[in-house]
Amino acid sequence: MTLASAGYSVTLRIYVPPEDQRAIGRITTAIGEAGGVVTALDFVEAHPQRLVLDITANARDDGHAADITDVVMLLEGVTVHHVSDRTFLFHLGGKLEVRSKVLLRNRDQLSMAYTPGVARVSLALARHPEDARNLTVKGNSVAIVTDGSAVLGLGNIGPVAALPVMEGKAVLFKRFADVDAWPICLDSNDPDEIVRAVELIAPGFGGINLEDIAAPRCFDIEERLRRSLDIPVFHDDQHGTAIVVLAALTNALRVVGKHMRNIVVAMSGAGAAGVAVARLLKAAGVADIVALDRGGIIGPHRAFAETSKQWLREHTNREARSGDVLAALEGADVFIGLSGPDLFESAEIRRMAVDPIVFGLANPDPEFDPQAARDYAPVVATGRSDFPNQINNVLAFPGVFRGTLDARAKSITERMNVAAAKAIASVVRPEQLTASYIIPSVFNPEVVDQVAKAVEEAADG
Amino acid sequence: MTLASAGYSVTLRIYVPPEDQRAIGRITTAIGEAGGVVTALDFVEAHPQRLVLDITANARDDGHAADITDVVMLLEGVTVHHVSDRTFLFHLGGKLEVRSKVLLRNRDQLSMAYTPGVARVSLALARHPEDARNLTVKGNSVAIVTDGSAVLGLGNIGPVAALPVMEGKAVLFKRFADVDAWPICLDSNDPDEIVRAVELIAPGFGGINLEDIAAPRCFDIEERLRRSLDIPVFHDDQHGTAIVVLAALTNALRVVGKHMRNIVVAMSGAGAAGVAVARLLKAAGVADIVALDRGGIIGPHRAFAETSKQWLREHTNREARSGDVLAALEGADVFIGLSGPDLFESAEIRRMAVDPIVFGLANPDPEFDPQAARDYAPVVATGRSDFPNQINNVLAFPGVFRGTLDARAKSITERMNVAAAKAIASVVRPEQLTASYIIPSVFNPEVVDQVAKAVEEAADG
Repeated sequence: MTLASAGYSVTLRIYVPPEDQRAIGRITTAIGEAGGVVTALDFVEAHPQRLVLDITANARDDGHAADITDVVMLLEGVTVHHVSDRTFLFHLGGKLEVRSKVLLRNRDQLSMAYTPGVARVSLALARHPEDARNLTVKGNSVAIVTDGSAVLGLGNIGPVAALPVMEGKAVLFKRFADVDAWPICLDSNDPDEIVRAVELIAPGFGGINLEDIAAPRCFDIEERLRRSLDIPVFHDDQHGTAIVVLAALTNALRVVGKHMRNIVVAMSGAGAAGVAVARLLKAAGVADIVALDRGGIIGPHRAFAETSKQWLREHTNREARSGDVLAALEGADVFIGLSGPDLFESAEIRRMAVDPIVFGLANPDPEFDPQAARDYAPVVATGRSDFPNQINNVLAFPGVFRGTLDARAKSITERMNVAAAKAIASVVRPEQLTASYIIPSVFNPEVVDQVAKAVEEAADG
Repeated sequence: MTLASAGYSVTLRIYVPPEDQRAIGRITTAIGEAGGVVTALDFVEAHPQRLVLDITANARDDGHAADITDVVMLLEGVTVHHVSDRTFLFHLGGKLEVRSKVLLRNRDQLSMAYTPGVARVSLALARHPEDARNLTVKGNSVAIVTDGSAVLGLGNIGPVAALPVMEGKAVLFKRFADVDAWPICLDSNDPDEIVRAVELIAPGFGGINLEDIAAPRCFDIEERLRRSLDIPVFHDDQHGTAIVVLAALTNALRVVGKHMRNIVVAMSGAGAAGVAVARLLKAAGVADIVALDRGGIIGPHRAFAETSKQWLREHTNREARSGDVLAALEGADVFIGLSGPDLFESAEIRRMAVDPIVFGLANPDPEFDPQAARDYAPVVATGRSDFPNQINNVLAFPGVFRGTLDARAKSITERMNVAAAKAIASVVRPEQLTASYIIPSVFNPEVVDQVAKAVEEAADG
């Protein structure tokens, strides 16, 4: 089901006899037959005894990349000298650097950038700390904070292993919204230590993006930081996901001709994303939500210690349903999956209301087969880039922070989240809107500006 | 005594009548007579009623800049429309930004920089965290950590006000040694909180530079972090100063023909710099040091609660001297001032041994008048850029961290500090060495490479 992608590309350095004019054809054919996609071919050098070539091919996953390598190795007259993983090469030396915005070529510039000139700037800030937004990096900087406990699909891999993901997030912040984001990978899972560490580093930053911190600790951590800090705090796994889901839902409803206030949404997953999606959908006016965790539908028949699940218990499931996901699907207008793979067969979508909308956002494999689902639902979305309607957080967090920093807002409110969702949805013009195009591409250049502007306007003074 | 510098430059936007051809001459003459130095003149625009000019001039300090402005305002026919401080303009928007080292133009690159490709890099680091040095920013990143309690000459101005100084430090790290340094300004003066915060953020960094944390807390904080972290920890106010002092002393002794093992060094100031200088000089083989704090000479007749002063009490002042600075100067070969201004009249240098060496490093005004001191001492050095022999920490920390990161060293040892000092001194060739040139300029392009190489070699495996 997975398509080959550059995420799993390999580069093979190959030796072939110089007189063998068909070697390259045999190699590329073999790779293609093995399901790989050749993306580059480079002549490296020619010797009397051999030609040296680099062939790069996309694979489906690590195992497939190994299969492709094996297949080439078996070809007669062909020697695989070396295998490089293009993704690892891409990461050599890390993905981020710090740059000076000021020239430092002579003593004059040194005495402005550093002593004695900088002392006067510091003195001015000691008297007027609010000017830090204008005179320092605090006007544009965001700390990307994780404890490495819920990294992508990998779980609790810790702060060092989380660093490449946080660097990638910083690259996205800069590329899409010109925000200066720096990774902060904390060596503790203790909520008190995490909260205190972020409070301590806050003076140098204009905002905090919490990332990949496991539920339910993430809710408490975010709430406490939102109370104690005077800069915005935003857990992207919660609110970024919720914003993009709401945007996609807004447009999907337009496609099928339904309204937010009339629909029932079945939702699987009561972790960080699930809870935030439910809250944002309620704020946006959704009539009812039926939420599921691993124990089934959340309702009055269940008791919870966790505050986040308590909220779901009290604010969702108007009809007090109970049971499993199939019971939740009964008559629902929308299904949103924020849980795991293979939750139900696509045919079960027939239990839903007419013209159902289904989002399967489990990564890497959705809750249902998205290809098959198209037989049962007019609008299907996933988190994957190889299907239409990719629900990708990259559509939200850059513009949200850009607008928030520009507004000098002290926090990111639900109102700003709703505004961001509306802005994302609006990038898809009415005449462009179809069942396969309910959400713009992350590379659509209008997204960040629209989101930033909408968030800035929605910010409270 | 202070010369005009760009640290105190102003830009005046001036209106003059268009027919007044002598106006510019009158303005520049007035500025010059007031002791300012005109550095730029720009025509902004011409109206029927007026010409608009920007004149930029260097002043000695804030008060002088105001005097210059007043003098121009008094000129007939001249209107000062606006006064801009060039240093503040230089700081608009902050001095740092984050840059991506990887291209992010298409989905292929996105799937390597972020999901799904980055997951494999994270998984590899989960198994082999030592590879973080190669695959992430941890191979080249330094956290510049302060609590804002001892910033330059300003004292305890707090973390937000300290930010411009820390940004300046990061600019220097990048400009001179291509180190990616990020400011971390902590919202606490409590040593336990500071130590814990740095331990928590350490996973994402290759080294820690402690900066502007007041003595005596800085000693305890550095020592505890050196014990608990497996990355280098370096308090620049201590060791950077000590390294450059040792380098300058090494060359000064060559000028006067004396040897480290035969000299007595009188030193005022027992704060961060003083204690570190004393330790390094002892490590370099200096025969004896006579140290002073505000209470006078440190010796057996004094009792101390602080561990750092205890060390001085036990390891200096072989002759058990007591008294004030004049008593310390008696027969000393070297005086090193790391305290405050106006400690003694230059004529008191006559109390010292023949061919005395005097370093007055208090900022902005040294312990003695450096101009007058030249009548009494063959070698005079200060921390100021407007006198020869500027002892400037910028000569040390960039190369020290460059070499330490390149060596993958877990700590910066006294051996590495001594090696750095030797390297700085060696940049001044024997044939170049004179009483007025004992230390290279911070802009000398050889310094960083020499220091980095020497430190890397001196690092223990």
